[in-house]
Amino acid sequence: MVEVQDLGERALIELARRICKVGPPVKVGVGDDAAVVEIDGKYLVATTDMLVGHTHFPMGTPAKEMGWKAVVTNLSDLAAMGAEPLGLVFSVGLPRGTKADFVRELLRSMNSCARRYGTYVVGGDLNESGDVVISGTAFGTVPKGGLLTRSGARAGDIVAVTGELGVAAAGVKMLLEKLPKRGYGKLLEAYAKPTARVREGVFLARSGYATAAIDVTDGLAANLWQISRMSKVKLVVDYSKIPVSPQVRKFARDHGFDEREFVLFGGEDFELLFTVRRDGWEKVKRGLSRRHIKVSAIGEAVRGQGVYIRTEEGIEKMPDRGYEHFR
Amino acid sequence: MVEVQDLGERALIELARRICKVGPPVKVGVGDDAAVVEIDGKYLVATTDMLVGHTHFPMGTPAKEMGWKAVVTNLSDLAAMGAEPLGLVFSVGLPRGTKADFVRELLRSMNSCARRYGTYVVGGDLNESGDVVISGTAFGTVPKGGLLTRSGARAGDIVAVTGELGVAAAGVKMLLEKLPKRGYGKLLEAYAKPTARVREGVFLARSGYATAAIDVTDGLAANLWQISRMSKVKLVVDYSKIPVSPQVRKFARDHGFDEREFVLFGGEDFELLFTVRRDGWEKVKRGLSRRHIKVSAIGEAVRGQGVYIRTEEGIEKMPDRGYEHFR
Repeated sequence: MVEVQDLGERALIELARRICKVGPPVKVGVGDDAAVVEIDGKYLVATTDMLVGHTHFPMGTPAKEMGWKAVVTNLSDLAAMGAEPLGLVFSVGLPRGTKADFVRELLRSMNSCARRYGTYVVGGDLNESGDVVISGTAFGTVPKGGLLTRSGARAGDIVAVTGELGVAAAGVKMLLEKLPKRGYGKLLEAYAKPTARVREGVFLARSGYATAAIDVTDGLAANLWQISRMSKVKLVVDYSKIPVSPQVRKFARDHGFDEREFVLFGGEDFELLFTVRRDGWEKVKRGLSRRHIKVSAIGEAVRGQGVYIRTEEGIEKMPDRGYEHFR
Repeated sequence: MVEVQDLGERALIELARRICKVGPPVKVGVGDDAAVVEIDGKYLVATTDMLVGHTHFPMGTPAKEMGWKAVVTNLSDLAAMGAEPLGLVFSVGLPRGTKADFVRELLRSMNSCARRYGTYVVGGDLNESGDVVISGTAFGTVPKGGLLTRSGARAGDIVAVTGELGVAAAGVKMLLEKLPKRGYGKLLEAYAKPTARVREGVFLARSGYATAAIDVTDGLAANLWQISRMSKVKLVVDYSKIPVSPQVRKFARDHGFDEREFVLFGGEDFELLFTVRRDGWEKVKRGLSRRHIKVSAIGEAVRGQGVYIRTEEGIEKMPDRGYEHFR
């Protein structure tokens, strides 16, 4: 009999999408970064993400890192839809024997992170469970016409990304292989206290030029593939244009890792990968720069299908996978 | 060092309430049945509930019962606020080795249950975890002025309840003690395929007469205490007026159980316990009856504090506890 691990995540999501059909007032159901429901002439956006003890956190991860990441993960999904957050609710499962201090730290970090983004933890549920399980739901709103999905990219659009890629994956590698941390503060921070691109998503939604968006949680390659498939366009990316942090470059060189593993297949950077109409690119770039947000055009959408990468050695099809050693 | 099981659920919720302070546009934060955020002149209501494998389900519970209950649990919390559902999102954790058929059944029952209440499962997240974990969030809206909370009961109000109480608790008892099921279909159904009082909650919210509401999930006594504490009123209930199903009565008699254990301290009936202004009671009663919904006045709110019960033996203070043998 087929078991879940044989099916894999993509087949399971497809199964859920087929079973959970939607109708009005639902605009986007199972399968995008978040669900979208029409409400009084705007869109309500809701997203849920579950983080599970040993699966999502290396042993010994402090409560405050768990809480922070749980909030960022959910807000990042809202950002990818262009939505402004209204609040978050959390269901938390804790094993017997969990220290009260752990719960206090977890709640405090959730609250601080929500406040950092101008929003609140508004409700929750606490339960006994085998692992630590943190299941969050964030909700927010976006004006109609501003909604960003994975399916709006068109041939001719610019492909762009905020911030720098591969940082969190290099950070995890460093932790898991117990490599020296000195000089790699950015890698640790990206992993332990990531940033959600909330204001950036709201800006893109309002700009009127962004056509699709997704947050980089599975790795750039995997996330490019999701936009390519959902938007039915071919995406061609220039490796030399992808923003790579000097710390990632040095870390890879020092330890003999392939930098591209982190940059193309490393997840959890929570940067926004998006497409923009060519005639709006300069405005979008200027608008984000004025807000001190780094943004890079890394390629373009053309007619066709698939994801391709241009390097010094030529153009090749990018494999549709995330960072395999990530966990 | 203090551990979570020593603190108990109530202290943990109080801790969360203290840490997660809220401000505008949040109207109700941590601590009620659901969170409430103002949005365009109405209230958005969101609630989250986590069901965990062995804690919430006896061994061998079929996937379709789990899925159904997960949806009902969340919709019932919306109902208790008077909100009309807009959709549900679910994060599901599954152990390695879970059969694909289990997932299919789970998703189908979630979808069927949501459709039964005119709403949809609009998004989700699937993960690997140690236990089966089903964490749902339901959201909906309620007109301003219609919102029902636990804190609105006033001296003079009628205390009322929909349906019949103790049915689910008797059903669990029957299952756990492997007692004969013949003639007790209602008990099984109440436990395996419970009903959320969604239309009833919406009706009460719109009636303009309901002052407070909660869904009976912890047991009538515990839920009365919650309204009493939050509304700062004394609640006096007449045992003879509490609607008890003849099947519960017979089940208790046949097996020598104390019927009151099920009725007063049994949880998960998902009925609505609410208070109504005395001058609106007849209208509310007629409105619900016209919709074929059983409703019973069981007592009244008076000045003071605490929860009291009147039986043939006199009036006594009701203990603030749920059904201890429930799980």
